[in-house]
Amino acid sequence: MTETTRYSGGGLVHIKNPHLEAMDEDVLYHLDLGTKTHDLPAMFGDVKFVCVGGSPNRMRAFAQFMHKELGLEGDGEELADICAGTDRYAMYRVGPHGMGIPSVSIMLHELIKLLHHAKCRDVTIIRIGTSGGLGVQAGSVVITDRAVDARFQPRFEQVVLGDVVVRGTDLDGGLVEELLACSEAVPDFPTLVGHTMCTYDFYEGQGRLDGALCSFSNEKKLQYLKRAHDAGVRNIEMESTAFAALCGLCGLRAAVVCVTLLDRLEGDQIRASHEVLQEYQQRPQRLVAAFIQRRLGLRAAAGNTRPSSD
Amino acid sequence: MTETTRYSGGGLVHIKNPHLEAMDEDVLYHLDLGTKTHDLPAMFGDVKFVCVGGSPNRMRAFAQFMHKELGLEGDGEELADICAGTDRYAMYRVGPHGMGIPSVSIMLHELIKLLHHAKCRDVTIIRIGTSGGLGVQAGSVVITDRAVDARFQPRFEQVVLGDVVVRGTDLDGGLVEELLACSEAVPDFPTLVGHTMCTYDFYEGQGRLDGALCSFSNEKKLQYLKRAHDAGVRNIEMESTAFAALCGLCGLRAAVVCVTLLDRLEGDQIRASHEVLQEYQQRPQRLVAAFIQRRLGLRAAAGNTRPSSD
Repeated sequence: MTETTRYSGGGLVHIKNPHLEAMDEDVLYHLDLGTKTHDLPAMFGDVKFVCVGGSPNRMRAFAQFMHKELGLEGDGEELADICAGTDRYAMYRVGPHGMGIPSVSIMLHELIKLLHHAKCRDVTIIRIGTSGGLGVQAGSVVITDRAVDARFQPRFEQVVLGDVVVRGTDLDGGLVEELLACSEAVPDFPTLVGHTMCTYDFYEGQGRLDGALCSFSNEKKLQYLKRAHDAGVRNIEMESTAFAALCGLCGLRAAVVCVTLLDRLEGDQIRASHEVLQEYQQRPQRLVAAFIQRRLGLRAAAGNTRPSSD
Repeated sequence: MTETTRYSGGGLVHIKNPHLEAMDEDVLYHLDLGTKTHDLPAMFGDVKFVCVGGSPNRMRAFAQFMHKELGLEGDGEELADICAGTDRYAMYRVGPHGMGIPSVSIMLHELIKLLHHAKCRDVTIIRIGTSGGLGVQAGSVVITDRAVDARFQPRFEQVVLGDVVVRGTDLDGGLVEELLACSEAVPDFPTLVGHTMCTYDFYEGQGRLDGALCSFSNEKKLQYLKRAHDAGVRNIEMESTAFAALCGLCGLRAAVVCVTLLDRLEGDQIRASHEVLQEYQQRPQRLVAAFIQRRLGLRAAAGNTRPSSD
């Protein structure tokens, strides 16, 4: 496919670190895996799709759901957690990344090295998440066409040896279109394409009035959120800029698909019932399942079943 | 005590948010608690010590260890997870905060509101963590006297409504002294006081050569780490500046106690065995247990037992 070859030499993952080849052993500490202790090519060499999300339970439910949707043997209940030796991340060939840029960055550094050591080719990585919506109906699924920072710029700033390094946050346009086309298979909720704003904080950083600290008025908050909406932002979360930057630099085709749990123009608190939130969280999973099935040629555009609740 | 009265009016937690009193209900989303659904004063009003750390298993082990050390009934195995409805944080009146500033910030906003709603008084909060050491023997416990950023400054920058807000990161000096005095009770490992550097990234942000990306030489890395050491930094982690800033603003007496898993002047990878790392991770727990016991008048300076491994 053109998107794939555009990205890489032979579809391999790019490690941009000259020091790595000289290392006798690479311990992926937070994943509890290593190049000497595990046969990574045998364990992971066939991986084509990696799905990550914030919450362990949600990712476990997604692993079981995909198992069923792909028609694999067994009921998916017994899926082993490959990183069982650590409780920081779980990995079922889908895996959680915790909350926020630092947590997702650690996971991505080690995941990208894992894909490199395992000699994986043509990998697509999708973040499946939750978010606050901006001017969209709660429960909508937003496919990110551009990850922007708190000033609505498509950039990810990082401090390296005390100096700021700025990185772009491009995502794969073809993948956005492909995912949007799959929304026909899951017609019972709205799916749209929009910019996603990524912040370092859930309360003050996203203009919430309900944190332990708040120094601004409701008017200032709404002005800020409306400026974000005018800039094309349709949802707000805490991982997308780092995710886009790191995956982009390493030649991974990456997408961000998040459901909105509320409309931030209407409030700050997440007050929907557990049942409603559970169903919302299944929506990006169902879209991504339809995408993977289509990629694998398992179906055209029929609707899928629903994942079990976590 | 003077430290307590210095901090607050009547020892209560300061919520610096004028909007909060007007709210009919406050849902602490990530803790799965709320002011209408839970009797927070009855559940938490007696809390004097809050201990937080990154990893759920480690905090569960610590809860069980404290249960035993305090001579409470039962074996501590049945400690209910108060936030069982969500898997993002667990709370046993000690609780995990995930990795990185965004994750710890969400937890602190909701924890501080919880302490406020529950009308807690004279609360001491301690982060028990892991870190990389700088020029100290692996396994040393560092009590943080000053949390600094990646440029060795005692400041926490946060973006609020698109603008940068700078906050101080003062910690309680009396609490540092009190914790250091307790190290006599646990003499089988080194305990020291030093600055703690807080970064947004574990790999490039801490000058590691072993990430998926690395654009600097070993010489530049060592120059940076030595500058940090010269500035008084003795360990590096990913939460302390936000933890110090938020707790300080809300009148909570706060401390950071982390064990070092390696000496970063000697390497980047964490290669100690699981058994050694488990024992290292128990060290801050043992120091903090001795501190709480002394505060509660349960003992003078005798050594404690060891927590069970997680």
